[in-house]
Parts: sequence; structure tokens; C-alpha cells
Amino acid sequence: MTDTTRADGRALDQLRPVTIERGWSAHAEGSALISFGNTRVLCTASFTNGVPRWLTGKGKGWVTAEYAMLPRATNSRNDRESIKGKIGGRTHEISRLIGRALRAVVDTKALGENTIVIDCDVLQADGGTRTAAITGAYVALADAIEWGRRKKFIAQRSEVLFDSVSAISVGIVDQTPMLDLAYVEDVRAETDMNVVVTGRGLFVEVQGTAEGAPFDKAELDRLLELGVNGCGDLRDIQTAALETSLER
Amino acid sequence: MTDTTRADGRALDQLRPVTIERGWSAHAEGSALISFGNTRVLCTASFTNGVPRWLTGKGKGWVTAEYAMLPRATNSRNDRESIKGKIGGRTHEISRLIGRALRAVVDTKALGENTIVIDCDVLQADGGTRTAAITGAYVALADAIEWGRRKKFIAQRSEVLFDSVSAISVGIVDQTPMLDLAYVEDVRAETDMNVVVTGRGLFVEVQGTAEGAPFDKAELDRLLELGVNGCGDLRDIQTAALETSLER
Amino acid sequence: MTDTTRADGRALDQLRPVTIERGWSAHAEGSALISFGNTRVLCTASFTNGVPRWLTGKGKGWVTAEYAMLPRATNSRNDRESIKGKIGGRTHEISRLIGRALRAVVDTKALGENTIVIDCDVLQADGGTRTAAITGAYVALADAIEWGRRKKFIAQRSEVLFDSVSAISVGIVDQTPMLDLAYVEDVRAETDMNVVVTGRGLFVEVQGTAEGAPFDKAELDRLLELGVNGCGDLRDIQTAALETSLER
Amino acid sequence: MTDTTRADGRALDQLRPVTIERGWSAHAEGSALISFGNTRVLCTASFTNGVPRWLTGKGKGWVTAEYAMLPRATNSRNDRESIKGKIGGRTHEISRLIGRALRAVVDTKALGENTIVIDCDVLQADGGTRTAAITGAYVALADAIEWGRRKKFIAQRSEVLFDSVSAISVGIVDQTPMLDLAYVEDVRAETDMNVVVTGRGLFVEVQGTAEGAPFDKAELDRLLELGVNGCGDLRDIQTAALETSLER
Amino acid sequence: MTDTTRADGRALDQLRPVTIERGWSAHAEGSALISFGNTRVLCTASFTNGVPRWLTGKGKGWVTAEYAMLPRATNSRNDRESIKGKIGGRTHEISRLIGRALRAVVDTKALGENTIVIDCDVLQADGGTRTAAITGAYVALADAIEWGRRKKFIAQRSEVLFDSVSAISVGIVDQTPMLDLAYVEDVRAETDMNVVVTGRGLFVEVQGTAEGAPFDKAELDRLLELGVNGCGDLRDIQTAALETSLER
Amino acid sequence: MTDTTRADGRALDQLRPVTIERGWSAHAEGSALISFGNTRVLCTASFTNGVPRWLTGKGKGWVTAEYAMLPRATNSRNDRESIKGKIGGRTHEISRLIGRALRAVVDTKALGENTIVIDCDVLQADGGTRTAAITGAYVALADAIEWGRRKKFIAQRSEVLFDSVSAISVGIVDQTPMLDLAYVEDVRAETDMNVVVTGRGLFVEVQGTAEGAPFDKAELDRLLELGVNGCGDLRDIQTAALETSLER
Repeated sequence: MTDTTRADGRALDQLRPVTIERGWSAHAEGSALISFGNTRVLCTASFTNGVPRWLTGKGKGWVTAEYAMLPRATNSRNDRESIKGKIGGRTHEISRLIGRALRAVVDTKALGENTIVIDCDVLQADGGTRTAAITGAYVALADAIEWGRRKKFIAQRSEVLFDSVSAISVGIVDQTPMLDLAYVEDVRAETDMNVVVTGRGLFVEVQGTAEGAPFDKAELDRLLELGVNGCGDLRDIQTAALETSLER
Repeated sequence: MTDTTRADGRALDQLRPVTIERGWSAHAEGSALISFGNTRVLCTASFTNGVPRWLTGKGKGWVTAEYAMLPRATNSRNDRESIKGKIGGRTHEISRLIGRALRAVVDTKALGENTIVIDCDVLQADGGTRTAAITGAYVALADAIEWGRRKKFIAQRSEVLFDSVSAISVGIVDQTPMLDLAYVEDVRAETDMNVVVTGRGLFVEVQGTAEGAPFDKAELDRLLELGVNGCGDLRDIQTAALETSLER
Repeated sequence: MTDTTRADGRALDQLRPVTIERGWSAHAEGSALISFGNTRVLCTASFTNGVPRWLTGKGKGWVTAEYAMLPRATNSRNDRESIKGKIGGRTHEISRLIGRALRAVVDTKALGENTIVIDCDVLQADGGTRTAAITGAYVALADAIEWGRRKKFIAQRSEVLFDSVSAISVGIVDQTPMLDLAYVEDVRAETDMNVVVTGRGLFVEVQGTAEGAPFDKAELDRLLELGVNGCGDLRDIQTAALETSLER
Repeated sequence: MTDTTRADGRALDQLRPVTIERGWSAHAEGSALISFGNTRVLCTASFTNGVPRWLTGKGKGWVTAEYAMLPRATNSRNDRESIKGKIGGRTHEISRLIGRALRAVVDTKALGENTIVIDCDVLQADGGTRTAAITGAYVALADAIEWGRRKKFIAQRSEVLFDSVSAISVGIVDQTPMLDLAYVEDVRAETDMNVVVTGRGLFVEVQGTAEGAPFDKAELDRLLELGVNGCGDLRDIQTAALETSLER
Repeated sequence: MTDTTRADGRALDQLRPVTIERGWSAHAEGSALISFGNTRVLCTASFTNGVPRWLTGKGKGWVTAEYAMLPRATNSRNDRESIKGKIGGRTHEISRLIGRALRAVVDTKALGENTIVIDCDVLQADGGTRTAAITGAYVALADAIEWGRRKKFIAQRSEVLFDSVSAISVGIVDQTPMLDLAYVEDVRAETDMNVVVTGRGLFVEVQGTAEGAPFDKAELDRLLELGVNGCGDLRDIQTAALETSLER
Repeated sequence: MTDTTRADGRALDQLRPVTIERGWSAHAEGSALISFGNTRVLCTASFTNGVPRWLTGKGKGWVTAEYAMLPRATNSRNDRESIKGKIGGRTHEISRLIGRALRAVVDTKALGENTIVIDCDVLQADGGTRTAAITGAYVALADAIEWGRRKKFIAQRSEVLFDSVSAISVGIVDQTPMLDLAYVEDVRAETDMNVVVTGRGLFVEVQGTAEGAPFDKAELDRLLELGVNGCGDLRDIQTAALETSLER
């Protein structure tokens, strides 16, 4: 491992600047505009009393997510999936990942027969859009649950969220494991990994892929360590955001 | 006609607060985040050297637009058109309207064989999304053309934009013609009209629809007068936005 | 304004020959094959007792329209939208326009919980297909309502249609405003406008677009005057058609 | 076989009244509005110089067909396939059948590298729409080929059509084989068969289906005899139609 | 007719080797992997208690079929219809044919309000895939009905299948009528015919198409004779397969 | 961790019986029918000389994969994705995973401008379909490459495959980490992980998801150990299969 200096001067285990604007949307029951550096994702949580038909009468709620990217979020324009008439594989995969990550910290019985849909729309992309989406979606979800409690759709004392969740990318670039890859690092990475970690430090999801050379156990261990620590930092930022009072 | 006071205290011929953030996007060749009150539309212009195959070799450029709305831009969530697998009629209609409005002030020969696609994505909707989109799209277009000139894709002296263009809604609510309808006014309007007007005060598009009682010529004349004046105000705001220097 | 003679010798304010064959379809509850010169549109009205689910129990009916064109209605063949798997923007836009125009003269409470779908299929196109469609659709609609009354789905005395409706195109060709543009005029028009006017002479819809040079208020006024008068002529033709007895 | 009298008084081996209006369409290179009783199909032939890419340079032409039905051609309204976003199985099957029937009498080498697309749109349906479509399509095809010859896209002396082709339905209703089933007969038929026969009396296609009881060889033979004779009558009607001079 | 020897040495009226593996699938209520020479089709029957909504309460069951081909079942790879987003005309047509063939021998009242869906997936194609599918589907269907009887969804004594059904292709190759065409024969055939015949020797379906020269009545009679005899052989093979005891 | 006995009596670190039938398909350039217990996947490799347009002229080949499941591969029938008109998220995700896994061991320069598409069709599903697909796909790929070499599309000495690749699932069931989960184990698993490992024991992909309780580092380590060892066993089975001579 060489003593790399990164393009933006960050340390190998350092996050990009993270900002969370809670309550960005005037309409949604919960919302957050989250930035990981130049990556900006608008997360809105829509709360509906009731559940899809297949879940009716089971006393449980449902949380799901949809991820999408504006056509010019990226460096060159991509055709809209609505125009193409179908959702791409990558979009599907990320939507499913976000949904799983959020459900991992939700007690659906405590949620009751309510549905929360989290939309994560990437307004600008610079690497790490899915991890920013998960991290922001958690904040929007927490606010939507609070909204449901105020509106009496959720029982006052039920603990719907039994933990928090955030996500970060890690990767090996020039044989060097590092945290939170920006786009220029991501395209050069030999290995790319996303970890989803709860506030208590447990793994919800580990998705590592060798884009170039396969990786060994020692590299994997170093990546996991970086990711767990990065998610710890994100948890603190989420907590701080949720502690400020939200005027709306 | 009664002496109406509007919900937000505006005069009948007064615009909502209008803001334009030029250069909101780090990637697009031109961009503007425009607000008409709570309506917020992100307009990005993507410049490509070259034209679609059917236009090749004719020495002319092409300008087109796509309009879309985030699922939770509105008060209750709408399914994504990408999920539904098809574009709705309203979306198509507005995309076509924006494209026509912009092309009305573009000299496609002066543009040369270049293509500019303007994406107008409604982040938050509170009435007047299509008129905000046209007004913001013009600013993004102007910046994209300037970018093309700097990059030498467009000849230095060619005047691509021979006029400016903006749009505003007018309508009759409780028998009272008024300017720039917010959503609560729009749903109650008997007549709804959008006018697209050039900087010089000429009509590009007049689209008036009686949602309730049909309207007569005198009402039509009053609506057109309100619209032309409102577009004059918007032209001044566009000009001011384009005169500030853009750091990027 | 020059003293233009039109290709087919018509005066500037003169309609093409208009014919309406009521009851063309053996199956539909109302139908009309309408011609504006070489433009021929088959309009069929399908009456169903009951309303879509979202309207159930509100004591109101529903009127909607669908517009389409046969592949070889035009000078060169167009691919079928059923083959392409999606409806084009223009088709959507016109279907919505026809539906709005008809609903403007229908008292949906008087209609009761009944649905009428008007299909307007262009068999041959020579300009003005949407205006011919609206004008013929009104006749088919009137007959379908009469059918519903005979079948006791509509109360005997309820006045479902409180006015009639027709539509015509106007435009500026060679700086000259004129009525009812044939295709060869339409493609050269600097401004193209469709007006939808009730039998009493009120506006339901005004849709004017500058295809070339933007237009000023004086031109707009002249176009509106031509349109209102043309729609008066169409109203008389509709009335005459509906007064003949229909054998079937 | 009982001595059945049919609903409309026809003999068992008698066609419904057949009419062919050649040149119904002002735009198409060949066209025919054909009626078999109340069944009316508009057939238009579109001639294009050139062939699809996969056939280029082989010195052969291409003939294909598309069949469709207007939404209210039938007794109750069907949703448009363009709205449903896909072509139904029945539509596909009939389009393929018409194309095969026409290609059976076309010498594609003599046609040269030209494409003819025949659209068969059912304006009104009362049984036998596919057989009327084939019979009318042949007339439209013949006129389009003549057009191609006049325009010099086809060599003057090349015999593109080496035979004619027509089609008719036969079926067993109440154990009685009969010719040219109207809709009320078709829905009660135990066996339904369509035969496509050349002017010289040879089979191009035999498609028989037991909708109720399976059928034996003797019944099959009687159906084939009825069908061959019916197609003989249609051939004479086609010949008569093509012999009249066509003013356009 | 010449004294042809076929590529694989078969007599003109001889089937390819036919094998039927009953119970190939561990999950389906009935299943058969059928081979006609190198053509291999996996037929699975899925039994559901209940019927589609449009049939509810009529005391009748429903049998339907879906046909598909793996992308590399053929000599060169075909794109998946799921990727293309639509079902091709040929697939639709064959699915409908299989469904009709099976329903011809099913007493839907005796079946009761149960649904059986037969999936016929071609794993390898060498001509005759639709006829192999029908022949194998009958075996899967019979087993699914037996399963329904054991599970008491079908009354013990009700005779659901009142006959058996099989299918075979016949064709004219080099002017010579022959049975069960392999792919190399099929592509050269002047006439191609599929016959569906019940165990008692009655016709359910006759579908003959002249791919080259049209055919006369004598040729048609010879093809039908070959087909009926071939289906008799298949009936015996089906019977033998169904008589062995099925361990599962 | 309790001393679990598994439903089928396997040890915690034991694979189900694995069989590989090479050359199952008569048409494909490489093929393997692979079984992991009751899970059966047909893998076919289609070799095409040439590459997709976007890769032309770069001197590199392309390897991609498509995964799909027959409708009745599972315990209850699923609708076909071709009928639904779109590919589900899970299908997309697995297709992408298989493609990445194979490309991780392919030297695309050594492959030259050739394309290999691997279709993995699940004929029967009992857990682990994606891992069986990857393991079988490698065998089909190896044979297709050998075919390309014999046909001289690939240079004689170029080493296209620089390693082998296989995949296996691991999971935590009742707090007990175990190898190669059958369906009954998979649905009860708290954590489910798929590992893709090269013949040399390096990781290509690690995808672990907490379906129930999140997992800690010690559990993750045990799962990885089980997975690496299981892939070692699969590598030996692949090697044995590829060493037998293939008659075709």
C-alpha cells in the first residue's frame, strides 16, 4: 500500500463533506436533500395509511424505495427511463438495495398497517449515489414516522425504528483501500464495495465486486474496517440532523 | 368583477416571488433552478456537437425539451412514468410546448449543426410548472449557447437567440381574471390560460381552456393583457440573472 | 394583407365543403362520418351504463375521447402506434383536447352515472383533423345521449347538453389570416390556431402557436374573429344534420 | 344435413352482398373499401421504392400486411391496442395470414426491390373480417403494382402477380356446413374454417378449427368444396372491380 | 411422387423417435419432457383451485397454454421476448393453438372451477415444436387432472377428459408428401401442414399453408391421411406413457 | 451455534450433489446442464464472431449473460416476464452478476473481437439458482472458447481464461452458518450471502444481506470461510467435467 494523496486532498479514511437539509420538500411527510461532496440526492418519504392488498390484515406495515437519476445528473446526458419505457437493471438493483437497507431497521409490526415509499432522486452524481441515498433516506423515513405518530396513524409508544442505518462506499484504487470514492476514483477502482451498517455497527449489507483484479481476505478486511468507521461518522451526522428542530 | 384579495395577499396582476439560480448543475452546459413561489423546476441544457440523423447535413441545429415531475413534487405521490412504462399525455404535451417555445427564439442556422436538449424536472409543484419551466429553460439555453461559443462549436458572431422568451399562467377565478395562479387558485379557476411571450412582447403561444364556464372576448382580452405584462416582468428577471457573472 | 386567392379558390373566411353522415356505424350508439374537404373522420360514441371506479357513487357521468389516425390516412405511411407500443405526444394531446371540448357542453350530473367514449379515427387527413373530429364528435355524442334517453339510462327531461360545440382552424399564411387551413396551407402557415367555440359563440379553447414569426394582438384578434364565424357556420351544419330523422 | 334457412335468408352456399370501392383513399397507391354484408374493411396499399435492410441487394421485393380493428367496429367497444401498448395474439395472427396469402401470388423478383405494405383496417365487423381483408387487399395490391409500373419502379413487362387470391369463411352450424358466416352464425359454429384460394382454384391456406365437436373427413370435404366455390365467386367480383377504369 | 429417401433414412409415413418423460418437474402438478427426434419440449401443467374473475360462478374450469422457446433452442440465438418487451406473432399464435387443442378434449364443467395452465418451453428445436408441445401438453394435463382428483378439487367420478389429443406436422417436400418434418425438411417444404387429431381420429385443427406452390385437393387428401395415421401412433405412445406408474 | 442437523442430513459445510452434463444442447457452441440438488440450470454459450457496435475496432471481445426462470421452475407458477412485458429487478440483478463473474476471469484482448452470450435458464429451482448458473456458465464458456479456437476465430495460443470461477451461497440459519442453502433453508435464513471465487481462491464478488438480524464481523468471517471452501469443491468438479472428452 502506497502513501496515496487523493485528488481532493482527503485522507484515505475521510468522508467527503456531508450535508443534510431536512424538510427540503413542502409536500412530503419526510424529506432530506443530502450531499456527499458533489453528489446530491433528494430523498422524500410519502406516508400512506393502509398497505398494499397482499399485506392487508396482517397487522404489518410496508417500507419500499425507488431510486432514479435525472437525465443530466451525470457528466453526459442519459436518456430518461420513462422515455425508454423500461427501468434499467442498475436502477432496479439500487432501488431494491435501498428498500432492504431501510427495512432492516424497521419493526413493521410497530409501524402498523401503514406504507412509506421513499423516493431517492439523484439531482447530481459524483460517485456514491446509492450510499448517499440510503443515508438520506433514513432521515426522511425517521421524519415520516414522526409525522405518522403525530397524526395518530402510529401508536404513541411503539418503537418503529429499533436502530439507524447508513451506507458508504469503499474501494481499492492503485492497490490502496480508501473510503467514500468520488467518481474519478470509482472509475479507476480495482475493487468497489458498498457497506450498509446500522448505528450499532452491525452489517446489513456487504456488496463487494472486483472490477479489475480479484481481492484477497486481507484486502476485504481492510475495506470492511474503513466502511464500518465511515458509517459511524455518518450515523453521527444523521443524529445531529435529526436533533435540530424542523420548522415547517 | 369583485375586488378580490388573493390567498397570499398578492395583487391580481402580481407575480409570485421569482428566483433564478444559474449554474445550479456542475455538469450541464447551462442550468437554472427557477422558483415561482413554491414551484421549483431544475432546468439543465445539454449541448452536443452534431444533430440527429434526420437533420444531418442541412446546416441547422436542433433544440428540444423534456419535462417531468418527481413523484413527490405534488401533494400526494404519483407513480413514476418510468415504472408505468409510458409517458402520460400531460407530460408529452408540456414537453412539446416547451420545445416549441424555445425554438421560436432560436435561429437554428446560426446555431449550426449542434443539438441542445433542455431537461425541465419539477422538484416541487405549486401551479405554473410549465411556465416556470419555459422561463428557466430560456436561461439554461442561453448559457449553453454561450458555452458552445466559447468551445468554438458556434461561430463567434452568430446571433443564435434573436429574442428572449418567457411564459406565465393567467386565469379567471371567481369571475376575476388574475396573473400567475398558485395551485389553490388553479383548481378553482373557471378558465386557465398559458401565454408564451417574447422579450419584444409578441405572442409565441396562447393556450386558453375553459375548465368551467366558457369565456367571452372581453375576458380573453383582459387575460392576454395580464399575461403580456407578467411576461414583461419575467423578461426583466431573466435579463438580470443573465447579466450577473457566472462562476463555475 | 394581400388579396390572396387560395389554392382551391376559397375566400379567406370560407370553410371547405363539410358533410356529416350520421349513423354511419351499425353498432355504435351514436356515430358520424364527417368530412372537411378531403379530411374524413369517423366518430363513434359508445354508451355504457356505469362510470369508472374513481367516479362511482358521485351521481355524475363521464365523457372522454380517443383520437387516432389510420397508418395511410396521410400522404406517406406512418407506423401504427399499436406496433410502436406507445401513443405519440400529438395523439395524446388531441385526444385530451377533444375530451375537454365535449365536456364543456355536457352537464355530467344530468348525464347520470353513464360513460360515453367517443372514438375519432381519421380515415383520411388533409389538415384540420382535430377540428373535424370535435365537430363530428359532438353529433355522435348527441345521438348517444338520445339513445341513452330512449333506453331510460338518462332521465327523460334532463338537459344533458346545455350548448353545442364545434371547432375550426385558422392561421396566418403569407401574412394573411384565413379560415380552415388545408394541409398545403397548414405546412406554410406562420401561425396556426385552433378555436373551439360553443353554439352560443363563447370560447372553450383557444390554442394558437407561432410556427414561424410570433404574432401580435391585431393578428390574434383577426384570427379569433375568423374562427368564431367559422364555428357559427359549423353549428348550423350540425343543427341541420341533427334535425334530419335517423333511420337505423 | 337439414334444410336450414339462414337468418338473412341466404342459401347455404351463398355469399353475402359483396361490394368493392376501388380508390377510396386519396393518398394510397392502391386502395379498396370492401364489404361482405355489414363487414367493412378499408384496405390501403403503400408502395415504397426500396426494401428493408435485411433484403437489400437480393433483387427481390417485399409484401407485408397489417390488420387492425377500430375500437367500435364491434358490437361492444374494445380498448385500442395502441393504448394497451401491445398487439393482441389474434391481431398478429391475422396480419401474418394476410401477408402470407398475398405473397403466395406475388413474384417478388418481378416486383424488384420495392416494398408494398397493405393496411387492412376493419371499420365495421360482422364476421369474416380476415377473409374480406384478404379479398380487398388483393385489389389494393394490384392497383399499387400498377402504380409502380406507371412510375417505372417496376419493369414494364414483368408479371408481378401470377395469379389472384381471395378468401372466405365456411363453417358447420347446427351440423350444417355453410358459406360465409355472419357474426351470429360464427358464434354458434361448431367448426370454423377459413380457406384462401387462388384464382386458378388452388389452396394457399386451409385453417379449420373445431370450436365445439371435432369434425370428420366428410365434413371437411364439404367445407372445402363450399370454400373453393365461394372463392370462385369472389375472384369474379375482384376481376370485375379491377376492369373498371379508376379515376383519381 | 418420387421414391424419396429422407435425410435420416425414415419412411415417408414414419415418425421420428418419440420419448416422453413424465413427471420431469418436481414442482408442477403434471409435467412431461417430450422429444420428437432432436426437438425437446418441457411441458408443465400448473393446477390452481379457482378460475379467472371473468369465469367466476359459472361452474366451469379453464385450460390455457403458453408456448415459448429458450434463446438458444435454435441453431442461432434469438433475443428473449422478455428483453424485447413483447411477444412475437408466432409465439402468440402457437400458444393459442395449443390452448384450443387441449380445450377440445376437456369437459370444463366436469373440471369444475379450477384452472390449469400448461407451459410448453422448447429447450431444443428441430422442427415440429408446436406439435410436440401439444402432444406432451396432453400428458401433463392428464396428470394435473389426476392430481386435482386426488386432492378432491375435482369430483371423483367426473370424466374431465372425454378424448385424448395429439398433433403432427405433414408437408410436401420435393413434391412428395411426408410425415413429421425435421427442420431441414421444413425449410424446403412447398406446403406445411399441422393437424391436431383426437384419439378417436377426429380433426380438431387443420392448418395448411403453401409456402411455395399452392396445393390441390389430391395433395391435401394425402397430407391429411398421413397426419391422421401419425396422430394414431402418437396416441399409442401417450397411452403407454400414461399407463406406467409415476413415482414422485 | 447449535449442533444443527440439516433437513437433508448434510453437514454444515457440505455441498448438495452436483452434476454437470456438458454438451446438453445440440446447437450451442458450449453448454452445460448443471444441478445443485434439485436446482437445475441449463447454461448455453452462443459464440458470434464480431462485437457490438460500441466495441468495434478496439481489439477486444465481449462476454455477457442472461438469466431467466421457466414459469413453473418454482413451487407455484410465476407469470412470464415476456408476457408482463418487462424484466423484473431480480432477473436483471442476477444477469448482471453472472456477466461480471465470468468477465473477471476472461482476458477480453485474448478473446479478440468475438462475442459470447451465456444464457442461464433455470428449469427447476430449489435455492442457489444464481450460484449454480455461474458455476455452469463457466463450463459452457470454456467450451465455447474452445470452439472459437478450433474455428480459428481465436488465436491458437492465446490464453483467454486466466482462471476459473464458481459461486456458492452461504447463510446463517438458526444462528448457524452453513453452506449451499436449499430453498427451505434459504427462506428461514437470517443472513444470506453469495460468494464468487476464482479457482485460485480470490474473491470476485461478496454479496451478503441480513434478511433478519444484522450480522457481526465474526459471523461474516465464518461465512466467507465456508464459501471459499465450497467454491474450491466446485472448482474440482468443474475441472473434472472439462477433462472428460466431449462427443458431439
